[in-house]
Amino acid sequence: MTYSYISHLYCPKCSKTYNTSEPHHLCTCGSPLLVNYDLEALSSSWSKDSLRDRNPDLWRYHELLPLQNPSYRVSLGEGMTPLLSLPALGKDMNILHLDMKDEGVIPTGSFKARGAAVGVSKARELGVKELAMPTNGNAGAAWSLYAARASITPTIVMPVDAPKITRNECAVSGARLFLVNGLISDAGQIISRAAQDPDIYDVSTLKEPYRIEGKKTMGLEIAEQTEWKLPDVILYPTGGGVGLIGIYKAIRELQRLGWVENGRMPRLVAVQSEGCAPIVKAWEEGRTESDFWEGAETMAFGINVPKAIGDFLVLEAIYESNGCAAAVSESSIQEEQQRAAQMEGTFVCPEGAAAFSAARQLRQKNWIKEEEHVVVLNTGAGIKYPDTVDLDIPVLQPGDALKRKV
Amino acid sequence: MTYSYISHLYCPKCSKTYNTSEPHHLCTCGSPLLVNYDLEALSSSWSKDSLRDRNPDLWRYHELLPLQNPSYRVSLGEGMTPLLSLPALGKDMNILHLDMKDEGVIPTGSFKARGAAVGVSKARELGVKELAMPTNGNAGAAWSLYAARASITPTIVMPVDAPKITRNECAVSGARLFLVNGLISDAGQIISRAAQDPDIYDVSTLKEPYRIEGKKTMGLEIAEQTEWKLPDVILYPTGGGVGLIGIYKAIRELQRLGWVENGRMPRLVAVQSEGCAPIVKAWEEGRTESDFWEGAETMAFGINVPKAIGDFLVLEAIYESNGCAAAVSESSIQEEQQRAAQMEGTFVCPEGAAAFSAARQLRQKNWIKEEEHVVVLNTGAGIKYPDTVDLDIPVLQPGDALKRKV
Repeated sequence: MTYSYISHLYCPKCSKTYNTSEPHHLCTCGSPLLVNYDLEALSSSWSKDSLRDRNPDLWRYHELLPLQNPSYRVSLGEGMTPLLSLPALGKDMNILHLDMKDEGVIPTGSFKARGAAVGVSKARELGVKELAMPTNGNAGAAWSLYAARASITPTIVMPVDAPKITRNECAVSGARLFLVNGLISDAGQIISRAAQDPDIYDVSTLKEPYRIEGKKTMGLEIAEQTEWKLPDVILYPTGGGVGLIGIYKAIRELQRLGWVENGRMPRLVAVQSEGCAPIVKAWEEGRTESDFWEGAETMAFGINVPKAIGDFLVLEAIYESNGCAAAVSESSIQEEQQRAAQMEGTFVCPEGAAAFSAARQLRQKNWIKEEEHVVVLNTGAGIKYPDTVDLDIPVLQPGDALKRKV
Repeated sequence: MTYSYISHLYCPKCSKTYNTSEPHHLCTCGSPLLVNYDLEALSSSWSKDSLRDRNPDLWRYHELLPLQNPSYRVSLGEGMTPLLSLPALGKDMNILHLDMKDEGVIPTGSFKARGAAVGVSKARELGVKELAMPTNGNAGAAWSLYAARASITPTIVMPVDAPKITRNECAVSGARLFLVNGLISDAGQIISRAAQDPDIYDVSTLKEPYRIEGKKTMGLEIAEQTEWKLPDVILYPTGGGVGLIGIYKAIRELQRLGWVENGRMPRLVAVQSEGCAPIVKAWEEGRTESDFWEGAETMAFGINVPKAIGDFLVLEAIYESNGCAAAVSESSIQEEQQRAAQMEGTFVCPEGAAAFSAARQLRQKNWIKEEEHVVVLNTGAGIKYPDTVDLDIPVLQPGDALKRKV
C-alpha cells in the first residue's frame, strides 16, 4: 500500500523540479514550489468508495498528501469540518443555496490547523528540529501547537496588533514567541534573517511547499461533501491566499483523477478588505502580480497581508476559474458577523464575515445568480476575536427580578 | 422509518411517567425527569452497520435522541469530536493508554453545544418561542447561538466572573443577556422567578429533560470510537454533572441494545476543584446527595457549581460504575494545562486540565492501573479562557534580529 502518491516538487514559474526527500524552500528562480503527485497511478488504484470507512479527518485523503510514512503523522483530529446550510442568511442575500464551510470547528479554531498538520508532519519526516515563521496570529498558534506535538521547536514573530488569544496558544505550548511593532511583512523580514541559520527551517507562507497541501483538503472536503458535484462559486478571505491556491489545486487534481466532472470548476473569489486589497487591485487592472499595499489596516487581521508571495498563483486561480476579486468595507464586516450570528447561530471570524459581505455585494451586482450554489469559507471561530463585538450588558444583584421585554 | 425511539419521560426518584408531546420540567416530586426509549423495538431494527454512511455528527444516533421530526433539527454540525491519543502525557503520568475526547472541536468551542443542539431542537418541536437559563458561560453561549438558529428568543443570566468570551457569543447572537454579581446559584434564582411566566421555557440544568440526551452522545461516540469496547476509566470535570449522567445513561442504553458487552461499564470519575467540591465531599462520606458548597471559587469556572440539582444522579453513576470522585488543586490545573500543550500540542480548558490532574492523582494512588485505557473529557477549547495563561513576550522593532536560543 502506497500511503502517498507524491512524485516530486516543481516550480510553477520556470518548471524546474526538485526531489521530496530533503527540505526545499523557494525555487532558484524565487518562486514557491508546488507538489506533484502521480495521478495516473493513483487513478487506477484509488476509488471514492475507499473513503467510506476512513476517519472524518483530512488524513482520509492521504494518497493526495505529501507525507510518505504515516508514523510521522502529527494530528489533533483536524478536518472534515461542517459544510453548513445557511437558508436564512441566504434568503436575506437573495442567494437560494448558500453554504458555509466552517473552519472554526477544528483544533486551534482556525483553518491554519490544516496547513500546520500537514506541514509539521512533513517537516518531521524530513528530520526538522527547529522551525520559524512570521504570522498574523492564527498560523503561528497552529504551528506552535502542532510543533509541540512533534517535539519540534518553533520560533514565531507576530505583529503586536494580532489577535491576543493567538499569543496564548503560542505561549502555552512553549514556542519562542516575539511581537513586532509592525506588520506581518516586518515579521517576515526578521524571520528571513533568522532562517539564514541552516538548522532553522523557514515555514513562512509558501516558502515551504507542504502547507498548501494541507489547505488543499478544504477543496477535497467541499468536493466530497457536495457528493463530487462542487458548488458554482467559492468565496475565500484572502491574505496570503494559500487556501485559495490549495482549493484550486485540489479540484484540478480531482478532475485529473476523474472524481469530478472534467471542466467543472467553481468560480473562485478572493475576498479582501478595502483596508488591504492588493489582490483586488491587481485583478481590477488585469495584472498577474500585485503591488505592496501601503498603510494596510483591517479588523479582519488574518487578511492584513500587504503583499503575498503567492499573489501570482492566486490571480491565476481567479482568472482560470472565471472568478473575481472583491473588496469589502470594514463596517460591512461587522454587520455580516452579527447577521450570521443572529440569523444562523454561527459566530464567524471577521475574515469569514468579509467573505459573506462579498457574497452579498456580488449577488447585488448579479455576478452571483440567485439560483447558484455558493460556498463561503469561514476561516476561523469568532471567539478568537472578542474585540469585534460591542458589549453593553446590564448587571443585576442577587435576588433581582427580570423585567419582561416590551 | 422511525426517526426517534423515544417512548416517555420518567422520574428516577418516584417512577412517575410523563408524555413527550408537551413541555415538562421537574417531576411533581421535585426530581429531574429522564427520557426513556423503546430499546426492545430499536434493537431489532437498528444495527451498527447503519452508522457507516451517516454524517460524522451527533445526529447519526438519532434513534436514541428525543427529536421525533427531523425537520425541527437545529444543527451547526456538532459532534464526532476527536478521540485523541496522548502518548507523551500518558507516559509522563505512567498511564500507557491515555486518550482525550476533545470537546473543544465543536461549534461554540465547548461540549455545551451537544445539549444545546438537542435541547433547542426538541424545544422547537414542542413549539417553544422563548427560553431562559442561568449559566457559567459556555452553556449560555451555546444555547444563545442555537436558539438564534431556531428563531427562539433566549434570556441568559451569568455571573460577572464567567469567561468574558462567552458574553460575546450571547451578545452577538442577539440574546437578552444579564450579568449577576454572584454565583450561578444566584443566576438560577433570578431565572426561576422569570420562568414563572408560562411563555418562558426554563432550560436550567436538568429542569428540562432533553439537554442530557445531547450530552449522552459523548458516551455514544466514545463507544463507537473504541469500536464498542469502551475504556476502563472515564474522567469528567463535574459542575452540574449532566455529561457524566449522560455518558452513564448512554452506556446503559448501549448495553440493553447489545452493542457493548453486557456489564462492561467504565469506572466513571467526577472531577472537581478543591475550591468547589460538593460531589467529592458527598462521595467521600458515602452519601447519595451533596450539600451546598459555601464560598465556591475556582479558575475552572465551568465546574464552579456549589450544589447540582442532579447530584444524586451523578453519585449514583459513580457508585454503580465503581467509579470515584476526586478534587484537584488550582495550581495543578494550570500545570496540567501547560503540560498538555507542551507535550501534546493541545490547548485544553481549565476544566479539562482538572480532569488530567485527577488522572495523574488517581494513577499515583494506583486507583488507575498502568495498563488501563483511560479517557479524559476535555470539555472545551482553551482559547475561551485567555486569562489562565501567563504571558511575558518580548517586543521587537522592524529590522531587529533574533538571537539564537542558548
